[in-house]
Amino acid sequence: MSARSGRRSALEQDERWARVAWAYLVEPKSGPLMRLLSEQGAVEPLARLREGRYRSTPELSVRLGTLDLDGLAHAARRQGAHVLVPGDAGWPDPVGTHTAPPYCLFVRGEPELAALTGRSVALVGSRAASDYGLRVAADLGEGVAGRGWTVVSGAAFGIDAAAHRGALGVDGPTVAVLACGVDIAYPRAHEALLDEVARTGAVVSEVPVGSAPFRSRFLARNRIIAMLARATVVVEAGLRSGSLSTAREARDHHLPVGAVPGPVTSATSAGCHELVRDTDAVLVTDAAEVVELAAPIGEGLVDGAGRAAPRAPEDDLDETAYAVWSAVPLSRALGTDALAVAAGVDHARLLPALATLESLALVARDGEGWRKLRTEGAARPT
Amino acid sequence: MSARSGRRSALEQDERWARVAWAYLVEPKSGPLMRLLSEQGAVEPLARLREGRYRSTPELSVRLGTLDLDGLAHAARRQGAHVLVPGDAGWPDPVGTHTAPPYCLFVRGEPELAALTGRSVALVGSRAASDYGLRVAADLGEGVAGRGWTVVSGAAFGIDAAAHRGALGVDGPTVAVLACGVDIAYPRAHEALLDEVARTGAVVSEVPVGSAPFRSRFLARNRIIAMLARATVVVEAGLRSGSLSTAREARDHHLPVGAVPGPVTSATSAGCHELVRDTDAVLVTDAAEVVELAAPIGEGLVDGAGRAAPRAPEDDLDETAYAVWSAVPLSRALGTDALAVAAGVDHARLLPALATLESLALVARDGEGWRKLRTEGAARPT
Repeated sequence: MSARSGRRSALEQDERWARVAWAYLVEPKSGPLMRLLSEQGAVEPLARLREGRYRSTPELSVRLGTLDLDGLAHAARRQGAHVLVPGDAGWPDPVGTHTAPPYCLFVRGEPELAALTGRSVALVGSRAASDYGLRVAADLGEGVAGRGWTVVSGAAFGIDAAAHRGALGVDGPTVAVLACGVDIAYPRAHEALLDEVARTGAVVSEVPVGSAPFRSRFLARNRIIAMLARATVVVEAGLRSGSLSTAREARDHHLPVGAVPGPVTSATSAGCHELVRDTDAVLVTDAAEVVELAAPIGEGLVDGAGRAAPRAPEDDLDETAYAVWSAVPLSRALGTDALAVAAGVDHARLLPALATLESLALVARDGEGWRKLRTEGAARPT
Repeated sequence: MSARSGRRSALEQDERWARVAWAYLVEPKSGPLMRLLSEQGAVEPLARLREGRYRSTPELSVRLGTLDLDGLAHAARRQGAHVLVPGDAGWPDPVGTHTAPPYCLFVRGEPELAALTGRSVALVGSRAASDYGLRVAADLGEGVAGRGWTVVSGAAFGIDAAAHRGALGVDGPTVAVLACGVDIAYPRAHEALLDEVARTGAVVSEVPVGSAPFRSRFLARNRIIAMLARATVVVEAGLRSGSLSTAREARDHHLPVGAVPGPVTSATSAGCHELVRDTDAVLVTDAAEVVELAAPIGEGLVDGAGRAAPRAPEDDLDETAYAVWSAVPLSRALGTDALAVAAGVDHARLLPALATLESLALVARDGEGWRKLRTEGAARPT
């Protein structure tokens, strides 16, 4: 069966836009297409497809019949979305070394994706996250961004959104990789979040504008998250969380994987614990350890004399005070009962620790509870 | 300076009791004494000490002046305490392979200490434990004992006591190693607990009856805990917890070490996380994994087809129901709010899970809360 021709465009002669056409026609990770693109480029094979010289599938035929490259280019321009292809200065090379590289990348926001993700960490996890997971994701997002590293995630409910928001909270760069077109807010409730991400960083997808978030595209998307980051950290994940596939992608491509522990009684931490037990994933407990995991050897060491970051006020706290400081949220106030639980200290130690932190201007009373004050340390570079 | 003579006893001619005399005279881990005992036995050197033929320290002189071996024997007998020395059938050989073996061991309860600790796990941790740590320690104590393994710990407040009590709750054997004489309840509040431990298992010490719990004896005691167990698991520990020294003793003697993760926001889990990050300690999340760590290769495998234990009702639960079942305490009722937090599930999933568990007779309502019902599975052998 030969493919029917859709609306032709002069852009089909352009290598960049011919790749976009292929991204519209064929789902991600097609082995035959990847071979074709690497051996012959995008333009010539597309012309041959138009001429009916390839065997086609019914689905490909339908898509070729609806291909409107001018329309795609117009829609991308309207969204301020750039198209990156291999060889562009903005093309992040690591993603191209995946065994199934994307045909092209759509970028809404900062088009210099390579620069944006040169120092980056993927923070991923379950949609159905616990309060604990959400807090840790926000803290890590904030801490990683505060150290000058970009937070890459998937803009999903739960851990992803908390990680993005943590970075945005300190005006840090963050990258959201979508399973649909960069013009589509998915999930719908995250439209404003995605606009914010595009403003400070980038919203990225390998499927063209207008593409819906098919189920298979989520799995494919996870490899882009892993390959845009120097390390992938699973913040909270049940045993069947999709975020574990992101960790697998990173591991398969020899990128470091980290996992945040949690209560062993929590089903939403079981996937993280399994990663540490059954793979070479590294247990990480704070942003410094996350950055250490992602940083080139010798940079950003956490322990002892090698600590790269200048000392912040909180670095000099004793163990109890540091635990309490870590447990006090930045974005809202938390009462002493909840703080005692979160910090794992009893009230007899909690109250003196809060007094110490207050005297150092690290926390402040807020109504019935306590809030963290932003410190220089939160935004210090590594 | 020569040693003054105290009240002599015919028992000083007996190798076993001469060792007890040395345990009274010299603090644990004395290199010179260990060499003396292994080269010449206990009797002859003791006689020479009596004759003033060794250089003595003021402290040794004072102790020799107060040595009353008949009195020690009488006190031990009154407490039902046995004295074990190397070569006894009940002497647990592993402890003798420590670089600083005990001179002898006092045992209140089951004198066949070797048999009692042949399949054993040390569960240790902080005195200042969190509610989470206490619950996990009790669950692990119960689960390890329910699988026919002996729980070894130090009878301290916090994790130690919870682990002992978990084992006692399923009438499982448990061993408490003290830093003072086995006739002394330390801490005082644990007098009844220690009586229970002696009834089902053993209360053990290397220092004679009547000896007070000096600070240095706690550190020395930790090596006995480690060497009476096939593996040491730190359930919850801050960065400076003494339980980390027990883990170090196990590691130094090539015994497996496990650590239970917890919230990264909790100071009382930081020591466990550090063990996993910085040593070859294995992250463990439940009793099956603890037993797997301690069991000889090929026995008690947790995963897949190798699972050695017969299937229990709870083995067939889905992920959410299992998490909820794990979170329901055995010893007391817990309300749904606390259960949702502990299990890491929201109320929408919690209530159906509880209904399922109730229909399987795995949990029961108790007042406003829920309690776990003891199942066959809890006491099944591995």
